[in-house]
Amino acid sequence: MRRIRTARAMRVWAEERHAAGDRIGFVPTMGALHEGHLSLIRAARRSTGAVAVSIFVNPLQFGPSEDLVRYPRALAQDLGLCRKESVDVIFTPKVAELYPPGFETTVTVIQLTRRFEGLSRPGHFEGVATVVTKLFNIVRPDRAFFGQKDYQQALVVRQLVKDLDLDTTISVCPTVREADGLALSSRNRFLSLPERRAATILYRALSAGRALIQQGERSARKVRQAMVRLIRSEPLSRLDYAAVADADMLEEFHVVRGRAVLLLAVRIGKIRLIDNMVVTCH
Amino acid sequence: MRRIRTARAMRVWAEERHAAGDRIGFVPTMGALHEGHLSLIRAARRSTGAVAVSIFVNPLQFGPSEDLVRYPRALAQDLGLCRKESVDVIFTPKVAELYPPGFETTVTVIQLTRRFEGLSRPGHFEGVATVVTKLFNIVRPDRAFFGQKDYQQALVVRQLVKDLDLDTTISVCPTVREADGLALSSRNRFLSLPERRAATILYRALSAGRALIQQGERSARKVRQAMVRLIRSEPLSRLDYAAVADADMLEEFHVVRGRAVLLLAVRIGKIRLIDNMVVTCH
Repeated sequence: MRRIRTARAMRVWAEERHAAGDRIGFVPTMGALHEGHLSLIRAARRSTGAVAVSIFVNPLQFGPSEDLVRYPRALAQDLGLCRKESVDVIFTPKVAELYPPGFETTVTVIQLTRRFEGLSRPGHFEGVATVVTKLFNIVRPDRAFFGQKDYQQALVVRQLVKDLDLDTTISVCPTVREADGLALSSRNRFLSLPERRAATILYRALSAGRALIQQGERSARKVRQAMVRLIRSEPLSRLDYAAVADADMLEEFHVVRGRAVLLLAVRIGKIRLIDNMVVTCH
Repeated sequence: MRRIRTARAMRVWAEERHAAGDRIGFVPTMGALHEGHLSLIRAARRSTGAVAVSIFVNPLQFGPSEDLVRYPRALAQDLGLCRKESVDVIFTPKVAELYPPGFETTVTVIQLTRRFEGLSRPGHFEGVATVVTKLFNIVRPDRAFFGQKDYQQALVVRQLVKDLDLDTTISVCPTVREADGLALSSRNRFLSLPERRAATILYRALSAGRALIQQGERSARKVRQAMVRLIRSEPLSRLDYAAVADADMLEEFHVVRGRAVLLLAVRIGKIRLIDNMVVTCH
């Protein structure tokens, strides 16, 4: 496994792989890798000849009051995990490599980012869209892999790839969960033991919402209320948002139909967690 | 010469050229080609193996009160001119090809667009930056050619190419002028005969400003005032802005030093014209 720190060297690697006829699979990450990331890397390994992983804690996607400084870093361990997964190249640029002095360009996906995470975290998706555009232009992946856990992010990336004519296919891979349903997240490690227990409320609320829809409930308000009630029943939790939305456009439903996504953002103590489930109405 | 209408076919062409080892030169235009455009095409022809020209009147870069509908179209003539210049491929996408329903992504260069054209034409440079990003991702040029006449635009494109890691070198080619100094522009054809005569005031004002600096004047205010006085002396003209700025950062000077750019935007009757000159202080 090769470790590359500069955009220039990364670009040369990509050109060489393409010239050799390899398709490049790419997993952009912020490090602190867990089984969720590893499932993306394995999907890349299965479907493409050359696998690149980036580790870059992107300051642009953190708000001023957010946890950029506290965001977990575990580079040595991450490198070991990537080696074990036969990653070909790991791209670890410094902040100044991607955002040198004078950097001043932003990519904005306008509609999809107006709600949910975009509303709760102003500027977050501009940061995501900008770094993804840059990374795709450097790594030139044929296919890039994102986790369903960050559902809205995956839609935003798909949209910008389409709108800016980037030559990359986006694969969205299923959320990896703990045995009790908690979606894997680098932030889970910050939960205290009681908080860790409380955190399963997201999965339980989503499952309850999904069950209601599967039983034939079509009132989005009732489905949402059932989720909200469960979240409120957990004393350590504070609801940020709960929504029942169209799975493609993220527009909130009155009447649930077609493919729906249930979305939750909940604070457990000081840690903000998100999760989602997709349900198809029959 | 091949004419291509879809992004997909254009991308295939670019891949084939690159696979054959050709470097691609690209001249993005809005059509209504004149000697200014032809000088860009010739520069591309001289320095690259395959030359692509796009003709696309980009609605995103026109404000609601601007001249999108009236903007001159002359496709048959443009195709003839490109054929004569041995252009390899001409890309003429429809609006719906580049902006299909649901399109919602914008590229913004934040600082460089805060003044001058960006101030006079809100949204203009977002439109330029977005279409240039798309066209570069479709055509994949090794080198792209822009005219110095749209000075701020050339800087904006350079900045976005750098910031978004696009793999293209930007060449800025000298402004082509009529014998009396008027910079070539597709909009010149709308000038009445008296307006056409009055329009030389931009060149005369810029020349006067440049002469002052060359004679040792270092007060930006005085240089600017000399230009403004000349513009005001022409009854058919109405000043939009006149500026003496740093040629790289476009920050307005108090004391002129290094490379300066003199910038003018002036209405002659109903037609808004821009022009500029670069002067180096010794």
